[in-house]
This record gives sequence, C-alpha cells and structure tokens, in this order.
Amino acid sequence: MSWNRALPYGTRDKLFGESRQMTETAYKMMAFFYTKGYRQIETPTFEYKDVFSRGREEREQRLYQFFDDRGRTLALRPDMTLPIGRVVSTIGLKGPLKLTYSGKVFRVFDDYTGKNNEQMQTGIEIIGGDPLKAEVEAVATVIQSLQAVGLDDTIIEIGHAEIYQSLCRELGLDEEQRLHFASLLTSKSLSGIRAFAAEHPQEKAFLLELPRLFGETSLLTHVRGLTTSRSIHQAIDRIEALVYQLTLLGYGTALSVDLGMVQTFEYYTGVIFRGYATSSATEFLSGGRYDDLFQRFEGQKRAAVGVGVNLDEIVRLKQQQSEPTNKAIRTLIHYEEAAVVDALKRAQGPLYELSVCETVVESREYAIEHGFQTLVICQKDGVTTESVEKGETS
Amino acid sequence: MSWNRALPYGTRDKLFGESRQMTETAYKMMAFFYTKGYRQIETPTFEYKDVFSRGREEREQRLYQFFDDRGRTLALRPDMTLPIGRVVSTIGLKGPLKLTYSGKVFRVFDDYTGKNNEQMQTGIEIIGGDPLKAEVEAVATVIQSLQAVGLDDTIIEIGHAEIYQSLCRELGLDEEQRLHFASLLTSKSLSGIRAFAAEHPQEKAFLLELPRLFGETSLLTHVRGLTTSRSIHQAIDRIEALVYQLTLLGYGTALSVDLGMVQTFEYYTGVIFRGYATSSATEFLSGGRYDDLFQRFEGQKRAAVGVGVNLDEIVRLKQQQSEPTNKAIRTLIHYEEAAVVDALKRAQGPLYELSVCETVVESREYAIEHGFQTLVICQKDGVTTESVEKGETS
Repeated sequence: MSWNRALPYGTRDKLFGESRQMTETAYKMMAFFYTKGYRQIETPTFEYKDVFSRGREEREQRLYQFFDDRGRTLALRPDMTLPIGRVVSTIGLKGPLKLTYSGKVFRVFDDYTGKNNEQMQTGIEIIGGDPLKAEVEAVATVIQSLQAVGLDDTIIEIGHAEIYQSLCRELGLDEEQRLHFASLLTSKSLSGIRAFAAEHPQEKAFLLELPRLFGETSLLTHVRGLTTSRSIHQAIDRIEALVYQLTLLGYGTALSVDLGMVQTFEYYTGVIFRGYATSSATEFLSGGRYDDLFQRFEGQKRAAVGVGVNLDEIVRLKQQQSEPTNKAIRTLIHYEEAAVVDALKRAQGPLYELSVCETVVESREYAIEHGFQTLVICQKDGVTTESVEKGETS
Repeated sequence: MSWNRALPYGTRDKLFGESRQMTETAYKMMAFFYTKGYRQIETPTFEYKDVFSRGREEREQRLYQFFDDRGRTLALRPDMTLPIGRVVSTIGLKGPLKLTYSGKVFRVFDDYTGKNNEQMQTGIEIIGGDPLKAEVEAVATVIQSLQAVGLDDTIIEIGHAEIYQSLCRELGLDEEQRLHFASLLTSKSLSGIRAFAAEHPQEKAFLLELPRLFGETSLLTHVRGLTTSRSIHQAIDRIEALVYQLTLLGYGTALSVDLGMVQTFEYYTGVIFRGYATSSATEFLSGGRYDDLFQRFEGQKRAAVGVGVNLDEIVRLKQQQSEPTNKAIRTLIHYEEAAVVDALKRAQGPLYELSVCETVVESREYAIEHGFQTLVICQKDGVTTESVEKGETS
C-alpha cells in the first residue's frame, strides 16, 4: 500500500451531517435570492491567472496555479466577484443587474493559520442602479437570506474603502508603507498606530483615534472633528446615509461601524462590509462597493456592490447553535429475494428505506446503528414487523 | 486593457436559467437520495495525485496537476469514487454504507473533442451489503432520482467488466494490446474486431459477435453458445439476475445490455452501467461494481457498487425537453428614498422585487426587460400602480 491517506494542508473531508447541512444551507440561500429577482451565474473553477492578478491581494493571498497544454498559467479562483465582472463585461450585460452565485473559492493560506484553503461561498452582486439603493438592497437581502437559513444574530459592520485609500494618498505612502499601515489597522494596534502617527503629523488626531473608531453607529457623529479631510468626511456621510436607511428598515440593531476596516481585495472603492454573528467572533461575510473593477474590464467605471458569505463558517455556527436531529419515525425494510416486489412497494415514501443487507441479523444491526424505529421483514410467506429499540417481534 | 477575456479550453460560463437549473437539479437529486437513507460525503476539490493514479485511466484521461509548497503533486479530482474509497478506508467505516455526493470533477480532454473538462457529478455509492441487492438498489434509486428531476426516459445499459478483463487474460494480451482491444470494443468496430479475432482464434466466435451483443435484454439467452469461457458465462448469469430483479420491480423497459461495454476507470470488477435518455444519444450516467478498489486502500476487497450522473448533460437534456418559463405574476416596486419603509413592506414575499433603479423611467425599462407584470411606485405622497405591458397608469 504505497497510497497516501493524508490530505493536502488546508483541505478536509466533510462527512454526513456537515456536508448535508452545507448542501441544504447553500440551496436555501440561493432559493431565497431567486425569489428576490437575483439571477445566477456560474463561472469555471479555474481561469487564466490574469483575471485574478490584482495589486495587494496578490501578495497577501496566494493562488493555486498550474499550466494548460499551451503553457499559459491557470489559477483556481480566489473569489467570485472578479470572474463575474469578467462575464458581465464580456457579454456586455447592461444594468441594473442582480446576480447571485454559489461555489468553491481557493486561497493558499499559510499552514500554521489553520484556515481552510477551499471555501464554499454564496453571495450576490448588484451592478448598476442607484448606489445607495443597491447597498440597502444588498445588505437587507443578505440579512434576510441568513434569517432564511436560521441565523438571526448577524451583525453587519460597515466601513469605507476611501478612508484608508485617501489617507495613503494624503500621507504619500509607498507600497511598503501602505501594506504596513493596512496591517496596523487590521490588527488595531494602538502602539503601532502611535508610532505611525508620529511619523505622519498631518493626520495625527484622526490616526490616533482610528483603531478605536469601531462599534455602535452613534460614534459617527463625533468623528468629523478629528480630521479636515474632505474624502473622509464624504465617506462618513456615505456610511451615515446607509445606516440611516437600514435603520428605517428595522436593521438598526444589526449594524455597527468600523472606520479602520481594510478589505483584502483592493478593488473596493466605497462602503465595505464585514459580518459575523453575535455568538461568534469569526467573520463569515464580506463585501462592498467596487466601481473601479470594471475600469479594468471595460475601460470605464460602473456602479457595483456585492456581498459574499463563507458557508463553511455558517455551517459551523449552525452546528454550534443546535445539533441537527432526525426525529422522524423511520422504517427499514429487509427482504428475501423472492419478496423484492412487496418490499419495494412498502419502501415508497421518505420515511422508508430498503435494506441492502443479506441477512435479517445484519439488517437488525444496521437498523440499530442508524436509528430506525421499525424493521419490516418481507419474506415469501409473509411480513414481520419488529420494533427496533426493543428488538422484539410485535 | 491587457486583461484576457478568453476562458481556458474545455471550460465555460453558465448563465441565468442554465446555472439555476443546475443548482436546482443537483439539490433535488440529493434531497431524493437523503430520503432513501444515503448519507453525504464531500471531499476536497484536489488531493495528492497518488489517490487518482490508476492503470489505464491515467493514460486515457489526463489530470489537472500542480504542486503544493513542499513540492508534492496535487491533482483536481477526476471522479468521486476514488476519494470516497479513501475516506471510507481512512476512517474505518463499516458497511453496509449508503453514500451520496455532489460536486465538480475535472479531466483534461483534448481540445478538439469539445468535451467539458469541468463537469458536475452527483451520485451514490453502496459499500457492503448483499451484492445483488446493492446493485438493484443502486439502479432503482438512480432511475427514481432522475424521475424526481423530471427525466422519465432513462435507459440503463448493463455490461460486465469481467467479459473484457477475462478475454484479456485468456488471450494473453499485453498492455498495448489491451488498450487496442478496448478501443475496438468502445467504437464497436466490426472490421477491427474481425482482424483482431483472426489473430486470436481461441475466442473467434465470441469476439466476432461481441460488437453486436448490445440491445434488448432478451439477447442474453442466445449468447452462452458462443463461448465456453466460465468467466463469461458467470458474467452473463450475473447480468441476467440483475435484469430479472429490476424487471420484477417494473424497470424492464428501462434496461438494455451491452456485453462489449468497457469502462474508462479500471477499478470496475463486476456489472457495469451506462445510462442515457431515449431522446438523446449522449451518455449521462456511468457506474458499476468496484470491489477491488478497497484492495489498494485496505489490503482487502470489499463489496461496493456506485452510479454517477453527469449533471451538465441532465441540464442540457431538460433544457431540450422544455424551456423553463417564469409565468408568475410579478411586481416591481420602485421607491423614492423617503418612501423606503413603505416600499420594503410591500416587497415582502416571492412575487415582489424591490427596484434598485434611481428613476421611475429606469425602473419601467427594467420591469419591461425582466418580464414584470406590474410596477408599483412608492412616493412620499402616495402610491401609483402601473400595468407594465401597456405602460399605462391605472
């Protein structure tokens, strides 16, 4: 046996309840998006690497790469937004478009992070339309879709890509400094930011507060005094408008803000989102406005906003919240070969299962192991019914 | 715009109806398998290449291969049966097991074949149990699952791996000759087989007939006289027993036989299956008994039978059979920002969609383009309803 039973790092098998819950959760979310007018797009699992090669994210999250017969570099897709942008541009679809997708994405995380390199992602993209309406629709729809799969405690954190971007421009940061600044913000390092602010006195007051500017949406009212940057003031206005609309719609308690939020994908341009459950710190939702993405594909910008949900995390959360149970009264039907027709007739319907065991003893063991309540034994000369738990013939 | 809009050969985008039908068909089949007691397993999209490296199939269908950080070779999975065999062996699951799976498989076909290199496959595996019962269960369950997704004209073709294998042994064929023989059988080349039979007079009578031994199950009664091979007689007995049972269960008209059937994957050992619809020649189902597979993983054989369905072909067939229509009466709700709460309240339920358009004119165009019947316009000072087809205010 030279065969290797190990799995590549960052991957794992999903067995029984977990994989079924994944299938059912993904389908329920998609079915919800369909009812709200979202149309599905599926792109290939891998594409030419060019589609995915973009600024900072390329350095932060490596791709699985390989070559086709002609020596061109292919890569497993690291996200869904980039390929959907490619499709929309290629076939010249006009907006407003409400799109949905569901599938695997692949990123090479370092071994020690323990992260899944293969993740199941489901989400929506709205291309065109009124920007604020599209953002309201995207956030409200995703919250509703999570409710549809039983997740009632989602928190959506709202930030704005322009806060980080405009600071980088204003402070004249080079690539290396931008990466460093992003990592300070992501880790909310107070001491790191203090050192950084000392080197950049122009925005010292705002920079010093930035790692603390997250939490309840009411903090927005106090922020404007910390900076005179027009870009940052506009970003705050934008977040406030979105929070106001979503609060009107009853989602106020599901919102928080984080002005120091930096997204991994550099294509975001406006409001950005992250989401988690109150019962868990793990982020399972991410998205935002990415109007610049179409610049690359079409030579001009296009209003676009999207939200993606990491279904692996959703399934983990649901499993924490309640163990799935299968309380239906189920009957296993054992048969002698001569009684196959009778057995199959009895096995119609979702609560009956046909045994593939050769002997009654084996079927009885199978029934106990798989939690059946009743065992029906079909023989040529008649039918016997057993209660499985007591093992008695009734 | 240096960006490349082309897709790697053998891949394609699936838009709107097609991708939604794929999602819904896959889910309906899985949901059916769940009710019949099948438990789902999901394995990673790629694994170490060792898991997939097996005799003939490796030469016939190439793998997408790449390397991990440690230089080990990974491959996108070309089928689901091999990884499921690995899982069952690794975690030491005892039989009988009824398993189901759904996911992508990847094979590098030559460009000119026009085949999809990425395919969606859903199927079942039964490990352990009584062999004949398991085969009956597998075939009947798959036929029923196809009925559940609206495919009523499935034909299951039954063959036996041992016919080809025992002839190879008996005629003392080397690897090259085996491949040649397999290709003659697959193409049902009468002239090719004639030349081949002339070189192998031991089984001349059987060989000359073999390319013609497919079609109605009644042909089985005439075949035994063509050969004295005990292995082939046993194989025919086995096919007959399965046909007899399935006919008892009412599936007689869905069956045909093909004694010259050769499967691409070499792990098959007993009865083998292929399936297609009467309305199309394209094969969409494949499977069989593969008791030897576990020899590699566990050092001993284990009864196992499986059937996989190519969902890309199923969706293509369904689209041929009937264009999906969306005849529900649907209402698009346009709103002024001040009327967002009223609009959202009206947009509850599956037949209502909230417009993300900025102006009424844009919403009207969107409603026409997407087949809405009614446009509701929510303004601060009241609500207007328009019939979309006539464009009039009612």
